[in-house]
Amino acid sequence: MFGTREGAHYLGEGHCRFSVWAPHHKSVEVHLIDEDSFFPMREEKKGHFLLEIEGVRPQDLYTYRVDGARQLPDPTSLHQPYGVHGPSAVVDTRRFCWQDHEWSGIDWEDLIIYQLHVGTFTPEGTLDAIISQLPYLSSLGITAIQLMPVAQFAGTRNWGYDGVFPYAVQDSYGGPAALQRLVNACHEQGLAIFLDVVYNHLGPEGNVLPQYGPYFSDKYCGPWGRALNFDGPHSDEVRRYFVNNAIHWVRDFHVDGLRLDAIHGVFDQSAVPFLQELTKEVRCVAHTNRRRVWVIAESDLNDPRVLLPASDQGLGMDGQWNDDFHHALHAVLTGESDGYYRDFGQIEHIRQALDCGYVYSGQYSPYRQRRHGAPLGPDLCRRLVVFSQNHDQVGNRQQGERLAELVSQEKYYLAAGAVLLSPFVPLLFMGEEYGEKAPFLYFTSHSDDELIERVRQGRQREFSDFSWPGDTPDPQATETFRRSCLRLPHGHKERDQSKCLQLYRSLVAWRSYLRPLRAQVSVGGDPQMHIWLRFRRDEQDFFLILNYVPERLAVTFPPGRWQKRLDTSNDSWPLPPGKKGDRFVFDSERVEGYSLQLYEKMGGTDPA
Amino acid sequence: MFGTREGAHYLGEGHCRFSVWAPHHKSVEVHLIDEDSFFPMREEKKGHFLLEIEGVRPQDLYTYRVDGARQLPDPTSLHQPYGVHGPSAVVDTRRFCWQDHEWSGIDWEDLIIYQLHVGTFTPEGTLDAIISQLPYLSSLGITAIQLMPVAQFAGTRNWGYDGVFPYAVQDSYGGPAALQRLVNACHEQGLAIFLDVVYNHLGPEGNVLPQYGPYFSDKYCGPWGRALNFDGPHSDEVRRYFVNNAIHWVRDFHVDGLRLDAIHGVFDQSAVPFLQELTKEVRCVAHTNRRRVWVIAESDLNDPRVLLPASDQGLGMDGQWNDDFHHALHAVLTGESDGYYRDFGQIEHIRQALDCGYVYSGQYSPYRQRRHGAPLGPDLCRRLVVFSQNHDQVGNRQQGERLAELVSQEKYYLAAGAVLLSPFVPLLFMGEEYGEKAPFLYFTSHSDDELIERVRQGRQREFSDFSWPGDTPDPQATETFRRSCLRLPHGHKERDQSKCLQLYRSLVAWRSYLRPLRAQVSVGGDPQMHIWLRFRRDEQDFFLILNYVPERLAVTFPPGRWQKRLDTSNDSWPLPPGKKGDRFVFDSERVEGYSLQLYEKMGGTDPA
Repeated sequence: MFGTREGAHYLGEGHCRFSVWAPHHKSVEVHLIDEDSFFPMREEKKGHFLLEIEGVRPQDLYTYRVDGARQLPDPTSLHQPYGVHGPSAVVDTRRFCWQDHEWSGIDWEDLIIYQLHVGTFTPEGTLDAIISQLPYLSSLGITAIQLMPVAQFAGTRNWGYDGVFPYAVQDSYGGPAALQRLVNACHEQGLAIFLDVVYNHLGPEGNVLPQYGPYFSDKYCGPWGRALNFDGPHSDEVRRYFVNNAIHWVRDFHVDGLRLDAIHGVFDQSAVPFLQELTKEVRCVAHTNRRRVWVIAESDLNDPRVLLPASDQGLGMDGQWNDDFHHALHAVLTGESDGYYRDFGQIEHIRQALDCGYVYSGQYSPYRQRRHGAPLGPDLCRRLVVFSQNHDQVGNRQQGERLAELVSQEKYYLAAGAVLLSPFVPLLFMGEEYGEKAPFLYFTSHSDDELIERVRQGRQREFSDFSWPGDTPDPQATETFRRSCLRLPHGHKERDQSKCLQLYRSLVAWRSYLRPLRAQVSVGGDPQMHIWLRFRRDEQDFFLILNYVPERLAVTFPPGRWQKRLDTSNDSWPLPPGKKGDRFVFDSERVEGYSLQLYEKMGGTDPA
Repeated sequence: MFGTREGAHYLGEGHCRFSVWAPHHKSVEVHLIDEDSFFPMREEKKGHFLLEIEGVRPQDLYTYRVDGARQLPDPTSLHQPYGVHGPSAVVDTRRFCWQDHEWSGIDWEDLIIYQLHVGTFTPEGTLDAIISQLPYLSSLGITAIQLMPVAQFAGTRNWGYDGVFPYAVQDSYGGPAALQRLVNACHEQGLAIFLDVVYNHLGPEGNVLPQYGPYFSDKYCGPWGRALNFDGPHSDEVRRYFVNNAIHWVRDFHVDGLRLDAIHGVFDQSAVPFLQELTKEVRCVAHTNRRRVWVIAESDLNDPRVLLPASDQGLGMDGQWNDDFHHALHAVLTGESDGYYRDFGQIEHIRQALDCGYVYSGQYSPYRQRRHGAPLGPDLCRRLVVFSQNHDQVGNRQQGERLAELVSQEKYYLAAGAVLLSPFVPLLFMGEEYGEKAPFLYFTSHSDDELIERVRQGRQREFSDFSWPGDTPDPQATETFRRSCLRLPHGHKERDQSKCLQLYRSLVAWRSYLRPLRAQVSVGGDPQMHIWLRFRRDEQDFFLILNYVPERLAVTFPPGRWQKRLDTSNDSWPLPPGKKGDRFVFDSERVEGYSLQLYEKMGGTDPA
């Protein structure tokens, strides 16, 4: 069957089909732990072992015994109820009773993504606990949530990028059934759900893949150690393993999209790139299931080929995170110029990001010490995902400060508007909508002392580029994790009545009203002070002003009679369509320092 | 100035401009050795040192003294008269009096390339000695010679792929002036000249580049050790160094094309690939100089993007060596199935190569243990370069046997015809045209004992995939080099009167007559036995039969009246247009085993 993963397939009525690719071994046996029996697998073709067993129940624990000696968990394990070092469990993914038959996904143009980390989003830190928050998220107006990786990692505290069982759902988050429940609940709420998946490396603890086969390359040394083998001998099987993983989440877990972590860590010289194949197959599964499924890359390459279709030799991805937008905005608002922020800091950089997508599209980057990027066409620009904060941009600071800790309220509101009213897909980081102050720090819970020390030191090294004072919090300390949990997570009055949340609600509502990704957009302004964007669609005509300086500015308007709809420097913000006021702007208007203002044209002539 | 290399530029009248990129150093001085004076260079911008000195003469020896301590030759040295460990010499490349103003190059469709190794082609082993052979090569009918790399390597005996001064012409070959004389003489004879250049690694002895700057990457581990830095910090300068090298040969040495060694060893994740930039700039220089210059890649990737234009996200190369064609032909004719030959061995593979260019265009390759390649469009097929022998395919055999040693005369003639009448650009390996029997072995002349031993062992390891008997000849032994020199190089009667040479002359002449790359080509046949190609252009209509089995075969012809023009199983071969015989073929004909036959249509109907 197309895209059938390996691993344990529970077929019903006690039948279970086990299959594993184990080219490093001569023999493989299934060990059913409860009854302590060993079942030798058949080598169907070289390196591929298969066996169907009767009398198996879902939840049964098993391992593979290789060459009559070592016992290992299944590389395609769906559940590790006792963690990465324990046995795997049989899961009947088809047992779940889906209620989302009417659901077909969300249009690209309507995406407003909310990124969250399962362990810190709620006090419980589970997938099920998120369900109770869905009405709140829905009322905020976002249209999709995006989970940081849920693949099984060592211990209970981790961002998720140290996953070692790409098919298993973290036991401490609730395991695979909990993810199905959450996806189903999202769809019932009208929310899409994206999963963050890591196809560029595996975590440092509990990784059994190298014991089974040549999953890793010796040709490339990625930023996280040995890169995966996507173009060497046996790479067909390795590619299949990860392509099937993507299909697995889409088909068996109904997810609406995947965010592929750091594809610049995927090294692949083959004539048909792995990522191109993956995108194509995911799209095919989505079509077959009549659903919209989006594949979004995190990429540090500023390379249009990520987004170009396969027919134009691209990877054919639907979207890509645009760090340049973040860095441009962050550097201007905070004045920071350490590390990668040295490439940014001028309002002109923000204008370039708004106009051209990438700020670096071939120019020399002082931080990278080389030219960087290539120009993105205007159509591809619309496929970028932007944010003023995310797990990396907050969490990869030494003290994990959120933007709310770094800038004034007026700047914070300006940043929110710049993201939410941009002609890109906006992404919010959990808690930013009400100005959460808890830091988001890097945390782990490894069990190996040497590794723990290595991670500690690596973390300290990472900040050597920056001139931040103070000690680096210990990633392994429980306290570091605890401090990173949201302080105002649950239907808390302080949260629900915060001014900030009101602004976010208004901005999200205005975004849904003016629909920047469906409008004709033009960008302009004074590169030293402010930027304007004009959105035109059918009869609608909006003029958005972003003032990036503290001074009150006089801004010239396009011809017409304009009515102000939103002003971040005000104290309250209407929801669209909003009652029509009486005061109109003709020609020009003075706007507050560090503010965002949205005007709608109510008539008048426009020669353009 | 566009594409201006660094190094010593002799400006005339004793003025010389020295420049070097040395970011690893705080100070650089030019040391003029004859007068034993040191001249501190100015740091123009970070890492870039510059100085103009008076009183310098061409041939003057110099080194760079870095940080007041070590003296090193110039990384952009044009001449190392005392070898890789000696000083560099100032060269006035503009002193040479070119006589090739009328020359503008050769059309792609007319290329017939003759590959030669300078050291073993003539008894003298020099560039100048080749000049005396040009009338012979010209009379053979080839249109271009291609030199194996001439960049300065350690010692006097080397294939050239261990070069360490990419801008210098090997001292023992005669240095840069000799190359200019040879190019000029080629052009006067109406021959184009290609240079083999190595942009994927540097040789193991005498490489000073890492002492000057970050020329090497720590991200990729190529097949020849550390890969060059084409996408990391400071890669702009590294790329510029090699792009300028390509321009250097085209502009200052008038070469008509470059053969880029093993581009699968060029690792580059940047949004604008180094090789795309290089091809573009070479093309620009060629246009400016109103000459046709061809960039041809050796590539193991079977990737159409090598040949696709930059506007379609390709590297935009003009041509690419097609090893698949060689392997298919070689495996069928020799029956060998070791190493990479295991992927070939069926006549159908030859048909695929003729029809589709790549044999592997996405299929599983047992040798590579993964799927390999992507399909090449019919237009791009014409950009492939094919051969039945080359330095690698002969020299990378343990005993360096040429095809003439491995197969019968009838098969040898068939191979010659299959290459020379193919719808690709044919390449001959020196000596194959008269059936030279001397082996072409791997030889070196390093000076470091440990390296010598390492190369010996590496060579032995390389043959572990093959079941060849006997010892691996010692690469370092003078005898190994001596045995590899052509036995019949100089206007030797035995050579000039050889039957084989007559056949080659005839085949080359027929190629020039029927011009397969300008014709409409169709391919067919019986995949177990023979292949036919039909070439149609204007009024011409040729039918070529390649019989790959020992039996006499009955072959069905397309409708018409056909006259035989060439039959490799005959004892002599006419030159085109050839006197018209009386015997015509209608419908079908019996053709000899292991033979190639060329028929021309002399009338009759053809419904097609």
